[in-house]
Amino acid sequence: MVAARAPRRAAETWGGMVEANPALAVVDTLLRGTGQVMFQNNPLTGLIFLAGIFVNSGKLGGLGILGLASSTLAAYLLGADRTLIRNGLFGFNGILVGIGLAFFLNYNGLLIGYIILGGALSTVAFMALANLFSVWDMPALTAPFVLAAWLLLFAVLLFANLRPNLLFVIPGVPNARVLPPTALREVAAGAGAVGLTPVNMTNALFRGIGEVMFQDKLATGVIFLFAIFVNSRISALFAFLGSALGALTAWTVGASGIANFHGLYGFNSVLTGIALGGLFYVLTWRSAIYALVAAIVSALVFAALAVFLAPIGMPALTAPFVLVTWIFLLAKAGFKALVPVGLADVPTAEAALEGYRTRGAGPAAPGRGDSS
Amino acid sequence: MVAARAPRRAAETWGGMVEANPALAVVDTLLRGTGQVMFQNNPLTGLIFLAGIFVNSGKLGGLGILGLASSTLAAYLLGADRTLIRNGLFGFNGILVGIGLAFFLNYNGLLIGYIILGGALSTVAFMALANLFSVWDMPALTAPFVLAAWLLLFAVLLFANLRPNLLFVIPGVPNARVLPPTALREVAAGAGAVGLTPVNMTNALFRGIGEVMFQDKLATGVIFLFAIFVNSRISALFAFLGSALGALTAWTVGASGIANFHGLYGFNSVLTGIALGGLFYVLTWRSAIYALVAAIVSALVFAALAVFLAPIGMPALTAPFVLVTWIFLLAKAGFKALVPVGLADVPTAEAALEGYRTRGAGPAAPGRGDSS
Amino acid sequence: MVAARAPRRAAETWGGMVEANPALAVVDTLLRGTGQVMFQNNPLTGLIFLAGIFVNSGKLGGLGILGLASSTLAAYLLGADRTLIRNGLFGFNGILVGIGLAFFLNYNGLLIGYIILGGALSTVAFMALANLFSVWDMPALTAPFVLAAWLLLFAVLLFANLRPNLLFVIPGVPNARVLPPTALREVAAGAGAVGLTPVNMTNALFRGIGEVMFQDKLATGVIFLFAIFVNSRISALFAFLGSALGALTAWTVGASGIANFHGLYGFNSVLTGIALGGLFYVLTWRSAIYALVAAIVSALVFAALAVFLAPIGMPALTAPFVLVTWIFLLAKAGFKALVPVGLADVPTAEAALEGYRTRGAGPAAPGRGDSS
Repeated sequence: MVAARAPRRAAETWGGMVEANPALAVVDTLLRGTGQVMFQNNPLTGLIFLAGIFVNSGKLGGLGILGLASSTLAAYLLGADRTLIRNGLFGFNGILVGIGLAFFLNYNGLLIGYIILGGALSTVAFMALANLFSVWDMPALTAPFVLAAWLLLFAVLLFANLRPNLLFVIPGVPNARVLPPTALREVAAGAGAVGLTPVNMTNALFRGIGEVMFQDKLATGVIFLFAIFVNSRISALFAFLGSALGALTAWTVGASGIANFHGLYGFNSVLTGIALGGLFYVLTWRSAIYALVAAIVSALVFAALAVFLAPIGMPALTAPFVLVTWIFLLAKAGFKALVPVGLADVPTAEAALEGYRTRGAGPAAPGRGDSS
Repeated sequence: MVAARAPRRAAETWGGMVEANPALAVVDTLLRGTGQVMFQNNPLTGLIFLAGIFVNSGKLGGLGILGLASSTLAAYLLGADRTLIRNGLFGFNGILVGIGLAFFLNYNGLLIGYIILGGALSTVAFMALANLFSVWDMPALTAPFVLAAWLLLFAVLLFANLRPNLLFVIPGVPNARVLPPTALREVAAGAGAVGLTPVNMTNALFRGIGEVMFQDKLATGVIFLFAIFVNSRISALFAFLGSALGALTAWTVGASGIANFHGLYGFNSVLTGIALGGLFYVLTWRSAIYALVAAIVSALVFAALAVFLAPIGMPALTAPFVLVTWIFLLAKAGFKALVPVGLADVPTAEAALEGYRTRGAGPAAPGRGDSS
Repeated sequence: MVAARAPRRAAETWGGMVEANPALAVVDTLLRGTGQVMFQNNPLTGLIFLAGIFVNSGKLGGLGILGLASSTLAAYLLGADRTLIRNGLFGFNGILVGIGLAFFLNYNGLLIGYIILGGALSTVAFMALANLFSVWDMPALTAPFVLAAWLLLFAVLLFANLRPNLLFVIPGVPNARVLPPTALREVAAGAGAVGLTPVNMTNALFRGIGEVMFQDKLATGVIFLFAIFVNSRISALFAFLGSALGALTAWTVGASGIANFHGLYGFNSVLTGIALGGLFYVLTWRSAIYALVAAIVSALVFAALAVFLAPIGMPALTAPFVLVTWIFLLAKAGFKALVPVGLADVPTAEAALEGYRTRGAGPAAPGRGDSS
């Protein structure tokens, strides 16, 4: 592919600069941490992700970087493995904690401290889960983010100095007798076409990709997809298919068309699609179907967790992705139709496939790899 | 025992036919999957179970078989171990998902797809839990069913095209100040004797056995108990004792007499009784008492989970059995008074006892065994 | 230290008496079980703890001893390891179950049976968790108490014969729009100074230590701290710092000043402080800061679990301590800045430090040690 040459050459130049300059190594680490939110260990992908966030909200971008820096710094201070740090594995949960807390809480000085603490907590939780799951060679995924953000978000309902903003769902028992408005549309009432129009479907699809990092904006979703594409075309394909299947599933079962328009039924399926589509299993026809079924299940589980958390008004975050991907991955030892990729051997979907074709296993790259 | 000879001879004939005919092997697999709901790896037990279900409800029976077929087929397609499949280990969660979803949701075309998906999901979850628990040689029990059914049931409160039926509890916070009506009776008001009458006690006892598969009918409970007896008299005894202790516990603490009449305090204790009564521990006086204490705890935990899920109106399913049995089994390595049976060596309670008496351990039968 | 000589000589005399007299060995076992609530394997500490409880409430003391006896007896009957029993490891969860159930439920004859069952259940749960966590050399902490007490407490909302008392929070969805009254004070209205007065701060601090065993009394907190000091000055220091940080954290984020006054934001931080402050990690400057950050997090997680359980009106108990300490301990393998102490080598913080200084690891004492 001619198109892939230019970024590859740029990556090589960047790699050389990073080796020579410790300050650039820090930047590289933080950018890889950003890219790892969607499993892309590539500083360029991380940079484009940041661009996509800042296009939508400077506040979310800035506080996201605060969480990213906090979690990465905590890993350094606690003496975590340097290679894992350099690959951004202590960054992706931190940036999500930063954006997530900034998204749901009103801004004040205390929030700054809360995000720094949350970032550090996500690093401890990542190390804990990595140790826990090493027995089964399983990844922590974004569970450290979900855990840290849930604990810190639940708590604020009892705190006067950290307040939930208007995006919070008001706590209440779910009403089993009221049907949700199923027509795909932007807001409850007013302007804009309603139903399965190309515009509405495009919004659901790309906002689903943007919502992985709380970005409810079509353009950001397009930028995110491009950022993934730069590192892995297979991952980009499964991000796209995941979002589409999530939205389609929500439409089929009659979920809220407004939530669907804004990508809420897509973002977990995006992550599940990327994880199972060629990354933790070698890409074959069977593993592709397996990944897409898991993406459908992720959209259903999003609704399940939303109901479960409704009495306290809390968001599901990426817990549906984590839960479904864990289940579909833990089964790996028992299904001969699927070829799992060792955790230490997960660079890009392309490299896993290549490695499998040449010698029946992924290459022995450290962490989630060093593909760029 | 003369009485046991006839079924044994029939079983041998059936075994020969199954070996010669692949279509019969499929039937045998599905029947064993049905029997495994109560740990009985015996096609005749499974057949009588199905008879007991169809006596009560053709719809539940038919949709149960759909879930059973879906989970078993998914295991084949994913390349699961053939011996495990043939022993029905990928069937019992599937049939429970089928019956459970059909029990709580209104019937429509989409429900068919939901059950097929749920059956397949239970197979992935079973393989995941089997892998997870292999570290401690622990069984998944019906956790795959509970997990798949909970996720799919929770979600429908947000879906317009899959609706909960009238059996659903309406979501609401529990009222700690209102006392439940404790008198044992069939309905809140009207005809029928009230209190600890023989009729009411018989109902509670046998409906408790029937409710293991959502069958709220005295006759079905009698049929189920007979089906267990055909394969294992010890298991039948502990199913009976479990149901009785569950009902007695509920009566003692002053639980709802109506729920008790309909077997809701019995079905988890039935399963706990069977599992711990001679199956996963060699039957001794101490292990028998241990199993019966666990059966009492299961009835209390049923109430605990019902309260926990009240705000979203969801059923506890067999989660109390799973939780209590896991706790009482996980402790095995530390209690010298109990003799655990290896997971690969669990055929029937009788065989485990026999094996222990002759050589100090259960026979090396595959899966949950091939006793029939 | 001259001051430490007298208790040490008394301990030696007591040790000799215990060896000669089986009845005293039972007393010694029960006292150690009481001391282990705060990780102090010392009969004198346990005796002073009991004194502190009886100063506040004879009922809680008596029913606590019932739970303690039940859990310890169950361990004997089930054939648990004698050394573990003698070190009180089957006692500390039992006494907490006894006090906890007596604290939240109205007294009647059935409560006696409930506490006996709960104590036995905590022993099975302890053995189960010990087996589960042996893979990572992780402690069960007070999770068996939390598990047994939660299950038995949740259930009573459906029982007519076991009733919650007025200390129960009334179940309800949390109100995200109402600010809590943040001023530190004893009761909602009436006499007493308000705010950060020395009296109020002293109350928050010592009641926080007392609340570890449900004792909402300043004097009891003072007695408890002295009891810890008798066995380990490092543990006493971290109990004090934990309580202070918990209260300070609650004050900073604007939590209820009344809950804070009564020690509710302190008791989990007390336990986290003791566990991570020199006990499961060798005491260094880095591990001390790590422990204190975990104490801060514990106070926040207390609020999070209180919100999570609000719809069913249930208490968080020591679950925040368990959750936070597990996370901060599980990470041990990955952080080179911290030196973990093997579970079998945890006697007192002082012995762990001494052992590390002389030969780089804790002494090989059985269980949580035999320091006294």
